[in-house]
Amino acid sequence: MKLTILGCHSATPRWDANPTSQILEVKGHLFLIDCAEGTQVQLRRFKVKFSRVKHIFISHLHGDHFFGLVGLISTFRLLGREADLHIYGPKGIKDAVLLQLKLGKSYTNYKLFFHELESKEPQLLFEDDKVSVTTIPLDHRIYTNGFLFQEKLGERKLDVEKARSLNVEMSYYNKIKKGADAPTKDGGLVLNSLITLDPDPAKSYAYCSDTAYYPRIITQITNVTALYHESTFLQKDQALAVKTKHSTAQEAAQIAVAAKVGQLILGHYSGRYGNYNLFKEEANQYFENVTLAQDGKVIDIN
Amino acid sequence: MKLTILGCHSATPRWDANPTSQILEVKGHLFLIDCAEGTQVQLRRFKVKFSRVKHIFISHLHGDHFFGLVGLISTFRLLGREADLHIYGPKGIKDAVLLQLKLGKSYTNYKLFFHELESKEPQLLFEDDKVSVTTIPLDHRIYTNGFLFQEKLGERKLDVEKARSLNVEMSYYNKIKKGADAPTKDGGLVLNSLITLDPDPAKSYAYCSDTAYYPRIITQITNVTALYHESTFLQKDQALAVKTKHSTAQEAAQIAVAAKVGQLILGHYSGRYGNYNLFKEEANQYFENVTLAQDGKVIDIN
Repeated sequence: MKLTILGCHSATPRWDANPTSQILEVKGHLFLIDCAEGTQVQLRRFKVKFSRVKHIFISHLHGDHFFGLVGLISTFRLLGREADLHIYGPKGIKDAVLLQLKLGKSYTNYKLFFHELESKEPQLLFEDDKVSVTTIPLDHRIYTNGFLFQEKLGERKLDVEKARSLNVEMSYYNKIKKGADAPTKDGGLVLNSLITLDPDPAKSYAYCSDTAYYPRIITQITNVTALYHESTFLQKDQALAVKTKHSTAQEAAQIAVAAKVGQLILGHYSGRYGNYNLFKEEANQYFENVTLAQDGKVIDIN
Repeated sequence: MKLTILGCHSATPRWDANPTSQILEVKGHLFLIDCAEGTQVQLRRFKVKFSRVKHIFISHLHGDHFFGLVGLISTFRLLGREADLHIYGPKGIKDAVLLQLKLGKSYTNYKLFFHELESKEPQLLFEDDKVSVTTIPLDHRIYTNGFLFQEKLGERKLDVEKARSLNVEMSYYNKIKKGADAPTKDGGLVLNSLITLDPDPAKSYAYCSDTAYYPRIITQITNVTALYHESTFLQKDQALAVKTKHSTAQEAAQIAVAAKVGQLILGHYSGRYGNYNLFKEEANQYFENVTLAQDGKVIDIN
């Protein structure tokens, strides 16, 4: 899994700082998560091959998470896109996009599917043989979901050299990768574990923005490889966080500890602090493996 | 009049090139003309004091002219704006903006007035004692207006030294500036022209984008100080211009010649050419005073 931060700030786009958007590359997919104004420019700036994006996940309908969506959809049309595009987001997102396209008589010449969300329970949005995406219901001023991206455990890795040396039938290789024991050319049987290695561990990424401190999510995100949790404020401004239904860096770290995640990524910073290291320092008092989201940063999730 | 180009390109925003938006400063007003995605960032980048913008004119509802509007309106709210804001644009613009604000429960805390346009005849949109703004109906794929910004002729300039030396009554100064002859303290009368100078000539700016070659506008823009006329294509691609209802640089220049304008500003370039000087060279074959719009360029209109 490779996460590219396209924008890590809250509120408004600035010359040197974009609001929230991320690209997650996982098992051949390029998932776009949130799409603030300017996201398409960030995609170009950081040289993401964004024609490969087929699924866009929008957490909620505040501008700093979705005002760039209609522009990206239009740009796909201008670039001659033919592949289907799936948009997952709160109810109303379809009307907002289609009304604007209609006013400009700018209908897409590719298929655009909207998957509108209303449920307050986790909901499976996408699944294939390698990965699944599920909503993480959050607690914000308007209806908001985070997203849980989970790899599925791959096949066992065949040690071809060893299989050959033990005279294993080649026609059985695919079954062996799925866990079967291995018939040999001379009529014997080799234990699967002798000629295969465990698959790479399945990784997972939980994206949680925007949200108040909301311990209800802990069960769902326990043991994820990496958690992005918004930290709009520092703890000294917790009253503001409560009022606006955002979180502090300390609260994000407390969620990370309780959920035993591998790595905590912070972001959605308020512009009032100037120094992002303050967020890391605060979170580090509770949780060690903290990474600061920054525009353009690429984070390996392992 | 001072014109700041915030974006001069057609179609899609890119890392180093923004679609159409301009700021016209005239007689204390800061008028925003069109508002592509990224306009608010350009306003910050070029250090425009954009809280002073009270009137926004949107030519048409293609994304490269209006997808930045809702974001700017939201940012004004986050910055604590209190002043009224007036939006002038095609019918439908109000629904598009308000639907998005409503979905985010992000209503403005300042007064937002929409002036929706449908007329195919020139229409006075704004007028005070110093300036007026009128639509210029254009010919594009969807309903589109240009805008004509006209200064009003100011008062005559009083030569105070000379008025004093001729013993003119100070209490008459205001009337003299309006053209009255001047009573003197000893009961005489001085001709107005002896103690006043002509006011600065009234300047005017015609913004015409997007449009096919459309000679019908010539009457309305005759003798303007400066004409911005879109030139999406070069003449060798005139067939494309006809098909998409855009203009070539040659056509823009021919309009400038026929309307006897003082200065022609070109913009809304297609990305296919790479070298913007080609637009100037083509237009210069017909009209001498040609300026290329470029992001960040400030143009004095005199």
